[in-house]
Amino acid sequence: MSAAFSFSIENRIKNGQGRAGTFLTPHGHIQTPCFAVVGTKATVKSLTVEQVKDIGASVVLANTYHLYLEPGTQIVKKGGGLGQFMNWTGPTITDSGGFQVFSLGAAYKQSVSKIAELRLGDGADRSSDDILINDSTMAKVTDDGVEFKSYIDGSAHFFTPERSIQLQKDIGADVIFAFDECTSPHASYEYQKEALDRTHLWAARSLAEHKKGMEISQALFGIVQGGRYNDLREKSARYIGGMDFDGFGIGGSFDKKDIEATVSRINEILPDDKPRHLLGIGDPLDLINAVEMGCDLFDCVAPTRIARNGTLYTERGKINILNAKFKNLFRPIDPHCGCYTCRHYTAAYIGHLFRAKEILANTLASIHNLYFIISHVKRMRAAIINGDFADFKNAFMEKYVA
Amino acid sequence: MSAAFSFSIENRIKNGQGRAGTFLTPHGHIQTPCFAVVGTKATVKSLTVEQVKDIGASVVLANTYHLYLEPGTQIVKKGGGLGQFMNWTGPTITDSGGFQVFSLGAAYKQSVSKIAELRLGDGADRSSDDILINDSTMAKVTDDGVEFKSYIDGSAHFFTPERSIQLQKDIGADVIFAFDECTSPHASYEYQKEALDRTHLWAARSLAEHKKGMEISQALFGIVQGGRYNDLREKSARYIGGMDFDGFGIGGSFDKKDIEATVSRINEILPDDKPRHLLGIGDPLDLINAVEMGCDLFDCVAPTRIARNGTLYTERGKINILNAKFKNLFRPIDPHCGCYTCRHYTAAYIGHLFRAKEILANTLASIHNLYFIISHVKRMRAAIINGDFADFKNAFMEKYVA
Repeated sequence: MSAAFSFSIENRIKNGQGRAGTFLTPHGHIQTPCFAVVGTKATVKSLTVEQVKDIGASVVLANTYHLYLEPGTQIVKKGGGLGQFMNWTGPTITDSGGFQVFSLGAAYKQSVSKIAELRLGDGADRSSDDILINDSTMAKVTDDGVEFKSYIDGSAHFFTPERSIQLQKDIGADVIFAFDECTSPHASYEYQKEALDRTHLWAARSLAEHKKGMEISQALFGIVQGGRYNDLREKSARYIGGMDFDGFGIGGSFDKKDIEATVSRINEILPDDKPRHLLGIGDPLDLINAVEMGCDLFDCVAPTRIARNGTLYTERGKINILNAKFKNLFRPIDPHCGCYTCRHYTAAYIGHLFRAKEILANTLASIHNLYFIISHVKRMRAAIINGDFADFKNAFMEKYVA
Repeated sequence: MSAAFSFSIENRIKNGQGRAGTFLTPHGHIQTPCFAVVGTKATVKSLTVEQVKDIGASVVLANTYHLYLEPGTQIVKKGGGLGQFMNWTGPTITDSGGFQVFSLGAAYKQSVSKIAELRLGDGADRSSDDILINDSTMAKVTDDGVEFKSYIDGSAHFFTPERSIQLQKDIGADVIFAFDECTSPHASYEYQKEALDRTHLWAARSLAEHKKGMEISQALFGIVQGGRYNDLREKSARYIGGMDFDGFGIGGSFDKKDIEATVSRINEILPDDKPRHLLGIGDPLDLINAVEMGCDLFDCVAPTRIARNGTLYTERGKINILNAKFKNLFRPIDPHCGCYTCRHYTAAYIGHLFRAKEILANTLASIHNLYFIISHVKRMRAAIINGDFADFKNAFMEKYVA
């Protein structure tokens, strides 16, 4: 790990895998477990950076694929790198673009009929603000790289592991990811196996390219893949975990019912002394399980995407603010919430903004949901530090699931 | 005037009509001349109230027609009235809905072919976030009131002067307006004359209804109409100006070339000791002329509407941020601007947000344009107080028009 980075573990869940730590980056420390807010296109949708700070966020995750297409990585570089370009002074992360190349590139002007089979929280929603998933055979994959089409204008582009690392170097986030092949959750075992071999090959090439540019202070995370197959997941964890990465991402899709056991097994294999980022998972209950199973970092577009549809978290579960029963509710969405939205606006007013299709609806709802998720993960961290994670989990579940 | 209100003039332009004053309302004083920000549906589009305060706004103007349809005036009333409902603690104004009833109601599912002939800044854009204008004969007008259709679902509604005042009482803004007939700028002299008589009849009925509810601390402004005909404008100014209103609105459309002379003539006739609100005018140059001719209050959707299209004010005129020349401009939109946007973000970044169709583009651009217009009017006030309005005007024009 570059000297500009370090990861230390402060406490652990008794007899468990979960841990609380501190990940130091050139732009400040990240207290883990931590939820990174998604700023796909160098903006956390509908929020100013002051609002992002105000909700307690400490890390922003942007996307290489999107920034490559617009405004272009050279513009971000000239603007001082991701943080300065978007006026965010804290730590930043970029995803490698692997997921987007396969999901968005393949889906350009094609049928996206498989979307309906996928749902938020199934792990398919990795780091993107777009949920299009399609048959991965529609992007042209060779061992060399991937040819894909721009979701903006259909123009053809080619990404290799080396290219992804170079682009991420230009963007200049603190943490970058190896380029991987992200398969469809419907891919066969045979295809998953072939794709995994390629992902491992690409991990080595990503790492080699990264080491060429070590004068730049960036940490490179490798990505564990393997889809829904436990043997492939274990193989991947051993392979990627054995390489000289600064941390690890756990990518791809899971069966909802298997996620706990699979993630637990992966984390048993991965080195204990490096941070682990579970990519694209943001459901409050999934987050509890993932923290318990030893994941340190998270990101997901779900909190802001569902917010823009009027779905809001409360300590008693999700609500839809468009429900008629909120029309006359002149109190906050969640009376126990300390977010800006709940401190200043009523449920009736926010419901009105949604009905009136006002932009401010997105802003206030996004603030609320991100604050909820960030605070939720912070409370887990505090519970691990204080040695009462099990009590926290029981208390949360009792209200949230009831 | 209710005891809760007062208007005092502090200084005047030498040998001119313009004046600087203070208009005291139950929710604070308004230093005039003043630009009221438009919050049509109880929200200043894309901004939180903290952002609205931060740009220096002191008054919010909402719309009776829109709030009547959604969320309903009873909801606003139950929410504590307009200010509390939207979390705005300062002074508030509602337009009577007259303009919207004729423009939006008449236009529901109808041809709106006349729109193209109208442009922002022509005075047709009064207090609404919608620019639809149609032949006023398409709303069913009788001396009793107007039947119109909801722009949301086409349902039929009926407004009378009494009803408008009652609705505005429920909404509870500090300043409310008499219900008027807003004619098409293309209406004949004969029709304008007939409509003006009706507006005068409705002014009397609005005033009578208002006086029934004088226990409520609201100021009622009458509206001068008359379209593009100077004799009708003068007649209206004499008639409305002679009534016991707390202030006056100048509504309807003008010929751009006549606006100065017409507004000047109207203000010569209106009582000197009451505030005058020029409805729906917000162009920087029009504002200078209107202040010079003795108008005290303004509102217009143009600054935020053009902002959402990427058109931004600078001291050297308007720019479109989507222009390619801004792609690599890593400095603020206007280096001399003190707004939040210019203090924190570059032109390159804002252009990126617009190209990426990100919501934050609207927010940052609206903050900039509103700050520009509000500061512009505040500078005019300071110039009147300091006795150097002519110098201010020359200095502004020299840069802005060049």
